[in-house]
Amino acid sequence: MPSTYVPGRSAEEVARVYGINPEAIIKLGSNENALGPSPKAIEAIKKHIQDISIYPSPGYTDLKDAIAGYIGAAAEHIVVGNGSDDLLNTLLRYIIERNDEAIITIPTYSYYETIVEAARGKCVFVNRTPSFSIDVEQIVAAITKKTKLIFVCSPNNPTGNSIDRETLEHLLQSTNALVVLDEAYVEFASESLVEFTNHFDNLLVSRTFSKAFGLAGLRLGYAVLNEDLARSYNRLMLAFSVNQLAVNAGIAVLSDLSFLHETVAMVEQGRTYLREHLPLKTYPTDANFIFADVAPHTSYEVAEYLVRQGIIIRNCETFRGCSHSHVRITVGKPWQNAKLLEVLDTFVRTER
Amino acid sequence: MPSTYVPGRSAEEVARVYGINPEAIIKLGSNENALGPSPKAIEAIKKHIQDISIYPSPGYTDLKDAIAGYIGAAAEHIVVGNGSDDLLNTLLRYIIERNDEAIITIPTYSYYETIVEAARGKCVFVNRTPSFSIDVEQIVAAITKKTKLIFVCSPNNPTGNSIDRETLEHLLQSTNALVVLDEAYVEFASESLVEFTNHFDNLLVSRTFSKAFGLAGLRLGYAVLNEDLARSYNRLMLAFSVNQLAVNAGIAVLSDLSFLHETVAMVEQGRTYLREHLPLKTYPTDANFIFADVAPHTSYEVAEYLVRQGIIIRNCETFRGCSHSHVRITVGKPWQNAKLLEVLDTFVRTER
Repeated sequence: MPSTYVPGRSAEEVARVYGINPEAIIKLGSNENALGPSPKAIEAIKKHIQDISIYPSPGYTDLKDAIAGYIGAAAEHIVVGNGSDDLLNTLLRYIIERNDEAIITIPTYSYYETIVEAARGKCVFVNRTPSFSIDVEQIVAAITKKTKLIFVCSPNNPTGNSIDRETLEHLLQSTNALVVLDEAYVEFASESLVEFTNHFDNLLVSRTFSKAFGLAGLRLGYAVLNEDLARSYNRLMLAFSVNQLAVNAGIAVLSDLSFLHETVAMVEQGRTYLREHLPLKTYPTDANFIFADVAPHTSYEVAEYLVRQGIIIRNCETFRGCSHSHVRITVGKPWQNAKLLEVLDTFVRTER
Repeated sequence: MPSTYVPGRSAEEVARVYGINPEAIIKLGSNENALGPSPKAIEAIKKHIQDISIYPSPGYTDLKDAIAGYIGAAAEHIVVGNGSDDLLNTLLRYIIERNDEAIITIPTYSYYETIVEAARGKCVFVNRTPSFSIDVEQIVAAITKKTKLIFVCSPNNPTGNSIDRETLEHLLQSTNALVVLDEAYVEFASESLVEFTNHFDNLLVSRTFSKAFGLAGLRLGYAVLNEDLARSYNRLMLAFSVNQLAVNAGIAVLSDLSFLHETVAMVEQGRTYLREHLPLKTYPTDANFIFADVAPHTSYEVAEYLVRQGIIIRNCETFRGCSHSHVRITVGKPWQNAKLLEVLDTFVRTER
């Protein structure tokens, strides 16, 4: 039985446990889009709502074509899933045999561990450097004959930093294992490295509609990978794993990127503002969240103080490789960021 | 690599291939609800549409409570998935080790074979009787030490008949393997046998919102099973496998069953009418479809003739255990059924 993934707290749960009006809760714990969903998605769902009684069209070709246009890859290299979690989970069943190894660079998104274990593989953990960079030499030293996968999240959840071109190239040249580059947050960074899939067959880049497009609740992820592996995935995936409204919404949000640009502008401003004003040690970030060290306080203490004031942030102690003083804070709307600072300032003044 | 599941043809594909206006196509090939989705689902989706930017609440407790009320089981015995295909696919990874066996009573829903093979298990096929009943003695004779699962679909897809209480009881008493009773179509039958889960720990009953509630495109399935297995499934499932709109829609359609009753009444009338008038050999059915033998014609020939007239039915030759003259026809709205009869009558008159 694999280790259980611990998701961020929901507003519903917090409202129930702490007796807070759910409407008043500021949710900065799950890296959702503070602007909500793209209006294009709402429009598309309403337009196609009668189609929910019909099974999705097998193959998802229109959706793949739209994604291909957006990222500049060929549709044959694109696969889709019920969120990128589902996509990777499905693919790992094909790639990993019992006791095969997957290298996971920590701290990072905890789901990789869960899905490797679900595939009965073995996780090999390699620490990032003290500044949370990828250490290719350490990864290469950990590669064995059983290594089938290497996970790199960029921008990395929860630390916010990205892998650079040279490091990725070096890593891809150093191994035959499949490198999974998880670019869930890449729309908030200066560049995507998806073009590397043109040159390296051992690279899979996974992406999502959950973050910059604000569709976390709809469940839609995709990946770019070599054509052989894409064909295998397409045979292995559930025929109807992506729901029809996610298909309609996904196509619609890619047809007009103005909401994406608005979101990215808000996040860029918000993270600069928060890094300037947060009374905490923070790290550079290319994502829609900020990683911080709250020592000498504990992450539990700070997260608990905030949640009692109706603000949910992520206590990172369940992330392997994080300390008991690491937290992750989603960039919110300006008023939410201001409220967060106000409450944190009070905490710092009264607790220190 | 498992065998590929072949779904029914989509209106989109048929429109493209045959140059037919998609609006004019009558889709009787995938057992969807001819009345479309429940209006309660539409209403709930519109009401909660802003929530699509938020991850679903972990645990899906409100949805499970609603299902528990609907089927009269305890919520702790209920699990949910991204369609019942996903649910069974996930559970099989836990139950089946390489070379474990699953008994499949054929002809039946082809997905069981796909998911057993995906779990690296071995399918053992047991034929139904000439009238397509379950033959418990044949099943018992096929059980070995490696048998972990026995699949029974009731009402059976594609044959339409149900297992009776005594046969199910006999089967459950004859084995320690987990019996999967797939009741995807049970709302169209006279009774569900879900109450047997109270007495037999080796029974799992799977159900869906895709058929009688008209939510095939949203992807929502559930199962009733023993509490230990439910707990294991809940640890193994993806935290966010069911999308938020499916949650909202699922809860809404269970709060008012009038659409369900309307659907069932339409199906009951339609299947009686079709069985009386179809110029084919048909079989008794408890589902929203009719199984027919078109010999001396082939199923390909008949399906192809109909599709050129814009009517999609299911050619069953891809179902293991079916002949080349078996077809499956979804019960449509009265005007769709009448149109089907008209076209089939012409076929019979001109081809015989």
